[in-house]
Amino acid sequence: MREAVRFAPERIRDLYVTAEAADRYAEFVDPARDAGVFVHETTDEVLAAMCDAETPQGTAAVVDWAPATLEEVLATAPRLLVLLTHVRDPGNLGTVIRGADAAGADAVLVSEGSVDVTSPKVIRSTAGSVFHLPVVTGLAVEETLTSLRAAGIRCLAADGVGECTTEEVDLVEAHAWVMGNEAWGLEPATREACDDVVRVPIHGHAESLNLAMATTICLYSSARSQRSAATG
Amino acid sequence: MREAVRFAPERIRDLYVTAEAADRYAEFVDPARDAGVFVHETTDEVLAAMCDAETPQGTAAVVDWAPATLEEVLATAPRLLVLLTHVRDPGNLGTVIRGADAAGADAVLVSEGSVDVTSPKVIRSTAGSVFHLPVVTGLAVEETLTSLRAAGIRCLAADGVGECTTEEVDLVEAHAWVMGNEAWGLEPATREACDDVVRVPIHGHAESLNLAMATTICLYSSARSQRSAATG
Repeated sequence: MREAVRFAPERIRDLYVTAEAADRYAEFVDPARDAGVFVHETTDEVLAAMCDAETPQGTAAVVDWAPATLEEVLATAPRLLVLLTHVRDPGNLGTVIRGADAAGADAVLVSEGSVDVTSPKVIRSTAGSVFHLPVVTGLAVEETLTSLRAAGIRCLAADGVGECTTEEVDLVEAHAWVMGNEAWGLEPATREACDDVVRVPIHGHAESLNLAMATTICLYSSARSQRSAATG
Repeated sequence: MREAVRFAPERIRDLYVTAEAADRYAEFVDPARDAGVFVHETTDEVLAAMCDAETPQGTAAVVDWAPATLEEVLATAPRLLVLLTHVRDPGNLGTVIRGADAAGADAVLVSEGSVDVTSPKVIRSTAGSVFHLPVVTGLAVEETLTSLRAAGIRCLAADGVGECTTEEVDLVEAHAWVMGNEAWGLEPATREACDDVVRVPIHGHAESLNLAMATTICLYSSARSQRSAATG
């Protein structure tokens, strides 16, 4: 909520808040009032009926969803992207958006056939990051890979079958990590349409990492490489 | 289940399996029979009553819980450990155990006042890793830090207030990452009892990463440093 007020106040249509929460959250309720957002005082009972959260926080907002387009993202000359294909778990999608934000990625791309980014569980697990970086949804996977490569962005399929690891591949040039579904991974056609297949190194006996962790490790490997190259 | 049969068959007391699942999971049901584990054929209805999983997989096992002790772990001259203090979310604990396994950590240490490691949600989210590396539970935080330091293991408090990042601190020597609670982080006394306070670098606008992601990034940073030092 605070992140929406800070980063996307123009998208907030209404902010609902209990009297108690208006005090507790004055740091963003007051700026929201100042920004001309319509702030409604309400009660815990009304909020509980409005929201599906198990422990409502005394505040809720109606926010316009402003999906970015791939063209808009490519126009910014992005250097680090992630494309999630057929991600199904809302917690995973939200956590990846949060991790991509933390790693300094330029945008998160989400394929068609994925969980709805606007579902409450996704929004909550982004911890505000959904308001920090562009999220493009409903993308056709193969067309997207074609567009990325045409824009000079290497496509790296993250997959346990990769011959090189995140520590061996060159991560300095602009690239996009391409991640598969939680259960079945990447479709073979998607993997083959990528420039490289790269695996997260597994040092113990685990078979794999979960999607959100694997994505975050890939993105942090990229951030480290790109930033250490930039600072010499 | 397969991981329990592979890595800890002596701890399995009984294995329950439907006729259909006995075929589907022959890769571990047959070895379990060979290992002398008592395999009971049962039905989906009985399994549903035995388990709390929403989508039972046709098999369940009763496994002895064999917690390790800190002394046993220290006797192996560990080089990479993680100490979770007051971790409350079962998914987080399980995911950290899985990430620690993947990163090649020597053990996972869990403080008193944390979620029960044997709870089904924890076990499931480890994806078998709970059978791959020692997990020590119920530890008193300050005594544990004292024991670790006496054993020559540096204690690194992972905290956003850290002056240096995971990429700046020396991670080659034996060390333990000390992680705080999901909501309130590390207690000040714990932070002060550590040798260094280290933060995961945040490049975007996110305030933080969630506990499981932060821990996994810390452990992978350590694995990279230790392994590249070992190979020259």
